[in-house]
Amino acid sequence: MKQELKQQVVEANQRLVSSGLVALTWGNVSAIDRESGLVAIKPSGVDYAALTPENLVVVNLAGEVVEGDLRPSSDTKTHLELYRSFPNIGAVVHTHSSCATAFSQAGVALPCLGTTHADHFYGDVPVARALTPEEVESDYEHATGVSIVELFQQQNLNPLEMPAVLLKHHAPFTWGKDPVKAVDNSIALEMCAKMALMTWQLQPDAGEMPRHILEKHYQRKHGKDAYYGQN
Amino acid sequence: MKQELKQQVVEANQRLVSSGLVALTWGNVSAIDRESGLVAIKPSGVDYAALTPENLVVVNLAGEVVEGDLRPSSDTKTHLELYRSFPNIGAVVHTHSSCATAFSQAGVALPCLGTTHADHFYGDVPVARALTPEEVESDYEHATGVSIVELFQQQNLNPLEMPAVLLKHHAPFTWGKDPVKAVDNSIALEMCAKMALMTWQLQPDAGEMPRHILEKHYQRKHGKDAYYGQN
Amino acid sequence: MKQELKQQVVEANQRLVSSGLVALTWGNVSAIDRESGLVAIKPSGVDYAALTPENLVVVNLAGEVVEGDLRPSSDTKTHLELYRSFPNIGAVVHTHSSCATAFSQAGVALPCLGTTHADHFYGDVPVARALTPEEVESDYEHATGVSIVELFQQQNLNPLEMPAVLLKHHAPFTWGKDPVKAVDNSIALEMCAKMALMTWQLQPDAGEMPRHILEKHYQRKHGKDAYYGQN
Amino acid sequence: MKQELKQQVVEANQRLVSSGLVALTWGNVSAIDRESGLVAIKPSGVDYAALTPENLVVVNLAGEVVEGDLRPSSDTKTHLELYRSFPNIGAVVHTHSSCATAFSQAGVALPCLGTTHADHFYGDVPVARALTPEEVESDYEHATGVSIVELFQQQNLNPLEMPAVLLKHHAPFTWGKDPVKAVDNSIALEMCAKMALMTWQLQPDAGEMPRHILEKHYQRKHGKDAYYGQN
Repeated sequence: MKQELKQQVVEANQRLVSSGLVALTWGNVSAIDRESGLVAIKPSGVDYAALTPENLVVVNLAGEVVEGDLRPSSDTKTHLELYRSFPNIGAVVHTHSSCATAFSQAGVALPCLGTTHADHFYGDVPVARALTPEEVESDYEHATGVSIVELFQQQNLNPLEMPAVLLKHHAPFTWGKDPVKAVDNSIALEMCAKMALMTWQLQPDAGEMPRHILEKHYQRKHGKDAYYGQN
Repeated sequence: MKQELKQQVVEANQRLVSSGLVALTWGNVSAIDRESGLVAIKPSGVDYAALTPENLVVVNLAGEVVEGDLRPSSDTKTHLELYRSFPNIGAVVHTHSSCATAFSQAGVALPCLGTTHADHFYGDVPVARALTPEEVESDYEHATGVSIVELFQQQNLNPLEMPAVLLKHHAPFTWGKDPVKAVDNSIALEMCAKMALMTWQLQPDAGEMPRHILEKHYQRKHGKDAYYGQN
Repeated sequence: MKQELKQQVVEANQRLVSSGLVALTWGNVSAIDRESGLVAIKPSGVDYAALTPENLVVVNLAGEVVEGDLRPSSDTKTHLELYRSFPNIGAVVHTHSSCATAFSQAGVALPCLGTTHADHFYGDVPVARALTPEEVESDYEHATGVSIVELFQQQNLNPLEMPAVLLKHHAPFTWGKDPVKAVDNSIALEMCAKMALMTWQLQPDAGEMPRHILEKHYQRKHGKDAYYGQN
Repeated sequence: MKQELKQQVVEANQRLVSSGLVALTWGNVSAIDRESGLVAIKPSGVDYAALTPENLVVVNLAGEVVEGDLRPSSDTKTHLELYRSFPNIGAVVHTHSSCATAFSQAGVALPCLGTTHADHFYGDVPVARALTPEEVESDYEHATGVSIVELFQQQNLNPLEMPAVLLKHHAPFTWGKDPVKAVDNSIALEMCAKMALMTWQLQPDAGEMPRHILEKHYQRKHGKDAYYGQN
């Protein structure tokens, strides 16, 4: 695995702290090198400040550790299921950021209430169902990933257009083409969740914004004629 | 365009970050040199820390780039419409600051609930209407500016007395005589919105404060006999 | 006026910023030298970082400037009325801190909901009435001070036991024996207001805590047999 | 008492500030050396930045000062009762962190609404009863500790599985095997309380999450086959 990608994973993990998305060790970022099929992920329970490209754990898509002396994130199997099923994503982020976690705990999908949301998420951010006792007991973290993939199939969602999910009773996952974009989506999700809570205090009936404005904002940033940014 | 004004635009953009008003690249500041009619604005999607007077984009009031290699902010046409229609303003700010954006998303005008508000905004901060599908499709950012100008004409508002607007489904714009004052108004708007949310939790019926106190606070800071500050 | 007291006033003003109690220039601290009857106060509209003992304004209790080239805080007359009527206080603080200002705007007194409050304020923090048009027009800042003093007389409050007040439609004032204690009270007031908002979300009927616990906490810190701290 | 443990107590106290859990001097951490039965605790009312291993106060389990020139935390007797009754704990933390204090003031237990909570607390965080006038008058801080111990006996709680309590009208205490773990629990408690407030805004009926997910998360981190972290 390339040193450069590992360095990006270290920086993306550390950016979870500087962005206020994680307390203690409540979050992890991974990235995949699609050529080799190898995934670099945060070691479990290690402080963000202590991360280096050398102490990241590298696993293959079957979950076998191929590099590193530490135990990988306890959420590794969820990351791997996402990489196997969503072939266009390059990085995955898990946090317990406060506002998005509140939506997860409440089991409430996050509707597109404004352009901030439409700039990042093409519609409602959905909630994945709670796992059954059997799923939790047999292979919890793998089943978590499967429940996300099922949800996206059922709702016919494109993972690059909807790079986030809320896990019932748990917390969010986001992803993206690379570690920077995946963390951007975690930040955007947290801010949209925070603003939704206040929007509903002001206007409890507020629902999805008009579709033509949602389309405009999503497409001006992500569509084929996008004109936001420098690329 | 003078180097000094460009430097002020750089610093004003960076102050959006240090004041906690923007996440990611969700905000932009511009300023106009009224003599030449040239406007310096943040390039689109560029990190605030990377801004310099040299990489700002300079456009004329017709929207043509006259200096700079980067693409200007996607909101440039909104800024330009404000400069064309509000001849006394010198700088414009757009953010997605959380509390003011919640008011925008809810479509709720921000009433003057106390002296903090009266020190900056001479009455309710109004909400501009959502744009029609036709407006969004033909020239979205220009139509956004036009909707603000129409609102101020309909409500007979003086842009220097009411240097802020909430865009329905979107977020706020503020402005001022110069970049410092325009960002001051973004900070004041966000704080007033935050305090209004809490005021209404305590007292759901709280409305505009008595007019004589509003007048006093606005005039002691902005009137012809103002005695706030050193000028 | 002693240089040491001026230095304390500078540091107390700057601590308003580092404690998150003020945005822009929304706050001021003064202190009185009771021997000479002179008061050092923040100049109006000046950035906190630019304050030095030399650019503070020194006024006498009649409000005449006796030192300094700048205009004193626009709230100076309120400070002076407090010094004249509350002979045991040594410093006064005014902020627009968000949560305490929300209580002020709502006109809701802050009850003693727990020991954090009882450690600093001996009972409910009261709300001073709105001023009449005549009071606002004739001598607004002086009348503000008078309304506080009247309130404390009517409610028979001891200013050292209740070192805070909420001004209707406006914001809080606090005070104390010296600048450090006065700012401590502003911080405590803001935190107690913040916690009250959340307490009432959980339990809308929560009112004053049992009197015997209030007494215990107030007296263990401020009573004649106090055993909190090192003095 | 070993210098190393004292150093840990200093750092744990200072981490209360850097984690945003305390304002002013509203919190304290202690640790016990079980071999000697000596407890190192923060001196009362002293700024966190001024703490050193040398100015900590060392007391025995009977509450006698055996080292140090300063007065120990006014909450020392509560700490000592916890050490005497909970023989497996190594450190105790008291804060007035905002959200957990709001739950304390409201007298509302904090249910396990999601996996963040289950990762740290094995069920509801309970509320200890208010003390009677007699208890408050005779030996307040000791009685506080006794009320916690009684509660844990009545509810048959294991202090290492439930390392936190909310004191009615007051604020939380947490503990753990060592100072780092005890402060971790204070941080986790504050975050869970914050997220619960938002969860209930979204879904007022939200109660304890399904027991099988609670079990899974608690056990994967704390059970005999735990696989979270590196130990």
